[in-house]
Amino acid sequence: MTITDAVAAQQPLVQRLLDDVAEIGRDPPGITRDAYGPGENLAHALLAETARDLGLRCSGDAGANLAMRWDTGSGAKPILIGSHLDSVVQGGNFDGAAGVIAGIAAIAALKAAGIAPRAPIEVLALRCEEAVWFGLGLIGSRCLLARLPDGALDLRHARTGATLAESIAACGGDPARLRDATPLRDPASIGAYVEVHIEQAPQLIEAGAPVGLCLANPGNVRHPFIRITGEEAHTGLPHRFRRDAALAGADLALELEKLWLAEEAAGRPMAITIGRFHTPSERHSLTSVSGSFTMSLDLRAYAPAHLTALEQRLGEIVATVAGRRGVTIELGTRSAAAPGPMDAMILAGFEAASGAAAPRLNSPGSHDANNFAAAGVPTGMLLVRNANGSHNPYESMDTGDLMAAIHVLARWLAG
Amino acid sequence: MTITDAVAAQQPLVQRLLDDVAEIGRDPPGITRDAYGPGENLAHALLAETARDLGLRCSGDAGANLAMRWDTGSGAKPILIGSHLDSVVQGGNFDGAAGVIAGIAAIAALKAAGIAPRAPIEVLALRCEEAVWFGLGLIGSRCLLARLPDGALDLRHARTGATLAESIAACGGDPARLRDATPLRDPASIGAYVEVHIEQAPQLIEAGAPVGLCLANPGNVRHPFIRITGEEAHTGLPHRFRRDAALAGADLALELEKLWLAEEAAGRPMAITIGRFHTPSERHSLTSVSGSFTMSLDLRAYAPAHLTALEQRLGEIVATVAGRRGVTIELGTRSAAAPGPMDAMILAGFEAASGAAAPRLNSPGSHDANNFAAAGVPTGMLLVRNANGSHNPYESMDTGDLMAAIHVLARWLAG
Repeated sequence: MTITDAVAAQQPLVQRLLDDVAEIGRDPPGITRDAYGPGENLAHALLAETARDLGLRCSGDAGANLAMRWDTGSGAKPILIGSHLDSVVQGGNFDGAAGVIAGIAAIAALKAAGIAPRAPIEVLALRCEEAVWFGLGLIGSRCLLARLPDGALDLRHARTGATLAESIAACGGDPARLRDATPLRDPASIGAYVEVHIEQAPQLIEAGAPVGLCLANPGNVRHPFIRITGEEAHTGLPHRFRRDAALAGADLALELEKLWLAEEAAGRPMAITIGRFHTPSERHSLTSVSGSFTMSLDLRAYAPAHLTALEQRLGEIVATVAGRRGVTIELGTRSAAAPGPMDAMILAGFEAASGAAAPRLNSPGSHDANNFAAAGVPTGMLLVRNANGSHNPYESMDTGDLMAAIHVLARWLAG
Repeated sequence: MTITDAVAAQQPLVQRLLDDVAEIGRDPPGITRDAYGPGENLAHALLAETARDLGLRCSGDAGANLAMRWDTGSGAKPILIGSHLDSVVQGGNFDGAAGVIAGIAAIAALKAAGIAPRAPIEVLALRCEEAVWFGLGLIGSRCLLARLPDGALDLRHARTGATLAESIAACGGDPARLRDATPLRDPASIGAYVEVHIEQAPQLIEAGAPVGLCLANPGNVRHPFIRITGEEAHTGLPHRFRRDAALAGADLALELEKLWLAEEAAGRPMAITIGRFHTPSERHSLTSVSGSFTMSLDLRAYAPAHLTALEQRLGEIVATVAGRRGVTIELGTRSAAAPGPMDAMILAGFEAASGAAAPRLNSPGSHDANNFAAAGVPTGMLLVRNANGSHNPYESMDTGDLMAAIHVLARWLAG
């Protein structure tokens, strides 16, 4: 059997697994698979059972992640294929689960075709990728690679109120081990980390392509509470005397948008999101010039040097707007995450495996792949066409598109 | 005694009255003279006593306004000099009170100089000019001219909870009479209405002039709740797919500001105030594109045709922004008030009386004068230099500047 035929033969398995995890998460109108709860646990059990049926060896780690290993006998460093089985509350079925299922299906296809892969393969179901459960995302890969921030184990689950440590222990993990600075897996011992994930923007729909080759996951600089202080005044105050904090906020937002569009036009992809953008509710008045304004900023880009340059431009724009509006602008608390660039060799391998037709694109969102890339593991991602974004019930991936990604993955694994 | 000397001789009286009304309203750090309450009532009593000492005849009307009349024996239609004695909560001492005191002082000066004015004069202390007490302003002049909106008599006092009808009755008025569509004073029987008022913007400070000649009080078009609807999305959504309601709000605000600046540059004064400008607080998220946004708009101008033209421009700008941002913009509830243009003959008379040195300027705020102008009464206003705006404890008018306004007023009354 050719690998192409072998992959095609897995479509019933893939469809069954997609349907089963959907049934596990049923929460109309969407899907909820709660991290460290019945939703995620049942999905782990379902995938483990399927893996065992394929002859894979299943094991848990101190972070309660599930590894499903095909010991090929090769002495090469293993290739990890990961994603997650949790979802947001009333989200869609495919964000995460499609990637774990893709790994299992790729192995099933290789086995059916009688092809030995270039290295041992482990499919990982990584815990709690979604930030909604603890206000912190990518937790399974953080556990694996000793990248939990200080205090993370004491965070509380949004639904159960249990701490992260308690939640991990309840799923068979060993939170005490996670307080250690040594990774559960030495990054140097990992040959590669690859991940299949639905695209969370409609770029592949626009391109008319089922699969995209990911160039990088974004890093970000975040300021959750930017404060603008001007001077409250009455509607009678002429323009030249006003120090309007709300219009300064509008000015800053549109200047940042201009920066974004100019960077994109110059071939330097990035994004700016301002989710919080408001005058103080307790002082809302039809006839007052607002003296204060609050906004958030999520600034993301795909290259560390670009992110640094953008942050400098942010400072310049803030100074310009503050100066011309007669206001003060305090950026406030700052957090940052490094970009996750994909490995050039893996990208080239994916390209060869896909027949060179697949578009290259940046991932709109961050993924567990970021943590592997940041730990120095050669990392690759395949993005699957998907309508209606994600984190909502209307995610829409065709199983045929996922099969196309599994085809690329299996051909690449075959070497 | 020359009129100039006679006016100058009134400075002690003016200062005493300013100090006495400040004492009545003492509410550190500001001044509170509550409408239809002890603050306004004691100030009415103080001015009435002073008026009687000058030989004026005091009377109340159905709206509980106080009229202080100098019956000169002339058969001419009376000239009304009005303003108000109430204040906002912890406001300043001069917004309103300075104008009533100016009327009394002008009469005192004419009497001291032995000059008979061109017509009988009535100084009016008009009730409840400030909108803070009932959510509706200019109530005394509305009562006088049958311009109360439907339901106004049932509004409740912010401090006492009494209805407007009860409040007026408690001060000796006759609310039943106010339900009648006939004005308490026939506008055709009024020769002129003039008002002295502190400026509520620093234009006269900037001009270095103690007194300004008011060209017009603004009319307005108001939309308290403009709703913008886009599409909520994740930070990963590329710009070309976004329908960001917050950035559409920023765009609309800055386009309206541009309109304002262009109109001002073209010599067509106006103002735009956006006091409410916010993403929905229950959905604030650092990493979400906002799908909805709310803002208010107060659009003011000084000529009815200009206001009409601006409202048409507003519609065009809304359509442009909605189109280019992929959002819907609903202007929602609309209210409007007509501009109050000042009478050209009175303006020319003030100019002659002031020696032509006084700048002409638009009033930043609306005043009781609006109602008289709207009723067809020839209307004029003198604005007095004042620092720090009004409706706050830091209003700052020099008594010398008020004396300059009284000088113009007295000379104009002398004819």
